[in-house]
Amino acid sequence: MRLATRADGTRDGQLVLVDTAQQRCAAVPQIARTLQAALDDWPALAPRLHARQQALEATAWSGAERFDATACRAPLPRAYQWADASVYRNHARLIYQWRREPIPPRYEDEPLVYQGGSDVMLGPSEHIVARDEAHGIDLEAEIAVITTDVPMGTSAEAALDCIALVVLLNDVSLRGLIPAELARGFGFYQSKPASSFAPLALTTAALGEHWRGGMLHLPVHIELNGQWFGHPDAGQETVFHFGQILAHLARTRRLSAGSIVGAGTISNADPACGNACITEARVRQMLAGVPDEDLHPYLKHGDRVRLEVRDGQGHSLFGAIDQRVVVQSAMDE
Amino acid sequence: MRLATRADGTRDGQLVLVDTAQQRCAAVPQIARTLQAALDDWPALAPRLHARQQALEATAWSGAERFDATACRAPLPRAYQWADASVYRNHARLIYQWRREPIPPRYEDEPLVYQGGSDVMLGPSEHIVARDEAHGIDLEAEIAVITTDVPMGTSAEAALDCIALVVLLNDVSLRGLIPAELARGFGFYQSKPASSFAPLALTTAALGEHWRGGMLHLPVHIELNGQWFGHPDAGQETVFHFGQILAHLARTRRLSAGSIVGAGTISNADPACGNACITEARVRQMLAGVPDEDLHPYLKHGDRVRLEVRDGQGHSLFGAIDQRVVVQSAMDE
Repeated sequence: MRLATRADGTRDGQLVLVDTAQQRCAAVPQIARTLQAALDDWPALAPRLHARQQALEATAWSGAERFDATACRAPLPRAYQWADASVYRNHARLIYQWRREPIPPRYEDEPLVYQGGSDVMLGPSEHIVARDEAHGIDLEAEIAVITTDVPMGTSAEAALDCIALVVLLNDVSLRGLIPAELARGFGFYQSKPASSFAPLALTTAALGEHWRGGMLHLPVHIELNGQWFGHPDAGQETVFHFGQILAHLARTRRLSAGSIVGAGTISNADPACGNACITEARVRQMLAGVPDEDLHPYLKHGDRVRLEVRDGQGHSLFGAIDQRVVVQSAMDE
Repeated sequence: MRLATRADGTRDGQLVLVDTAQQRCAAVPQIARTLQAALDDWPALAPRLHARQQALEATAWSGAERFDATACRAPLPRAYQWADASVYRNHARLIYQWRREPIPPRYEDEPLVYQGGSDVMLGPSEHIVARDEAHGIDLEAEIAVITTDVPMGTSAEAALDCIALVVLLNDVSLRGLIPAELARGFGFYQSKPASSFAPLALTTAALGEHWRGGMLHLPVHIELNGQWFGHPDAGQETVFHFGQILAHLARTRRLSAGSIVGAGTISNADPACGNACITEARVRQMLAGVPDEDLHPYLKHGDRVRLEVRDGQGHSLFGAIDQRVVVQSAMDE
């Protein structure tokens, strides 16, 4: 199944089913008005949503509405839980060289996670609004899952069955604020403003052969201002899969339906795969001897970020995140 | 106004107005079915809720239902945002002696905050369910506010107007997991399981003279197993008030209506005020030369925690948190 949330003037938007070609969609108010409502009763409602999609496919979506990705909000415009891991070995390797610190203890033994904020999730076309370019505005291309209820103490294997949907996101980070914030010992807050999501949330079944071993095995294509920036594979060079991340998160508490859980910034060691965040590009340049003043700049007012996952036939799976950066201090000038 | 959320078999419960004596209550489905629904449209709905409460008071709540605090859930059984500060100077002083670390940099210059998880909020009578006593199960008595929408870049003064409600909570912490988790640099996750809330959420107007300068000025009474444990004043020896905490949280992002924001574990320097968490009691004992094996134990299976705030006349303002500790490993024995 392919689900999206259409803007309708409400805080949570309207749940729609979307066809494979992303041309047609249909609201399903008789089943669930919002994606959160569907997730709240997923074991009962997912089969009904699936049956409705099959009925639409049987009639070639006749009578369905035109799907407009730019009218989409995040699948969950606000969520009850957003936790993010860091399971791409090469990302940790590069980032901790940037921070001039060792990789955190037990990195290979248990997932490194942080508790994110989830009260504002941006849609695929919404602006990244920042206060100041000096904050070091960076993108982070990530894959995340949206869960059903996850019981406390679940095993990694059982947790895989709690994955309802898979999504693509840009976990916006303010690099300039991270060192001082982490130095205080309480984790990220100001340095992790609202993230942006691609329009479609897909079931693992809809991902077919590309979903295996608890991970999505496809490259994520990243463009900055229309230029290629990277296409690292989301299923390679990882320390843990989503079942293991969920089991770690549920060790001392249960998770509620609609929890969004990320695997962290995608990163491949091969430089030919490019980068999923600007900081990695800068660290690779630094290690190659590029002087500080020539390093790839962080995002500036007016910059455009595009993220997309395509299957072997070139079809976009989640639709694109395609958004601009708006910096308030630049607008004041 | 005094609001509570009554268990009704749904995930979010049913919003009720409660009388001052906490004897009567009335659902208000014609205004808002849930507290989150009321907060989503607070500027329009708060006056209607207030008018309904006045109408009920005019008839001495005749026809209203009996209020049963034990049937209450958390005011928001799941929330979109929970962020917690640490503004009580004495708490930081004692806790960082326990950790054998310096107080974090700029502690007096800007609020120290962490991003908490909000997908499960426990009610006043729900058990604290833990895996293992070895995790060092601790309570933390705190006051928090629930906000309306808070714009990015708000001032501390303007943020005070975004406070819709004030609540009392027990921010349960697993002390045994904190050092290793914070050593990884990403903040708290497993060490901060679900928090518990007293049944009533009050407007600042309902707190009258006890709410001033952006803080509640009353002691919080803490009992362990029916014995006095502390009564520190929530308005004393603080570095920042709630307006300043909110302005810090909204520096790089907006906050959505229904965000719960805490001020941290209440703590007074005077030992006669006792403690709002077990760790502080232990640090005070350590500093007095008590040997490790005689320190106050952390919470054990079957222990009972009670938190309450009373006004000058002895009336309970938020109702009581009165909950037991259930440890799964102890039950397996």
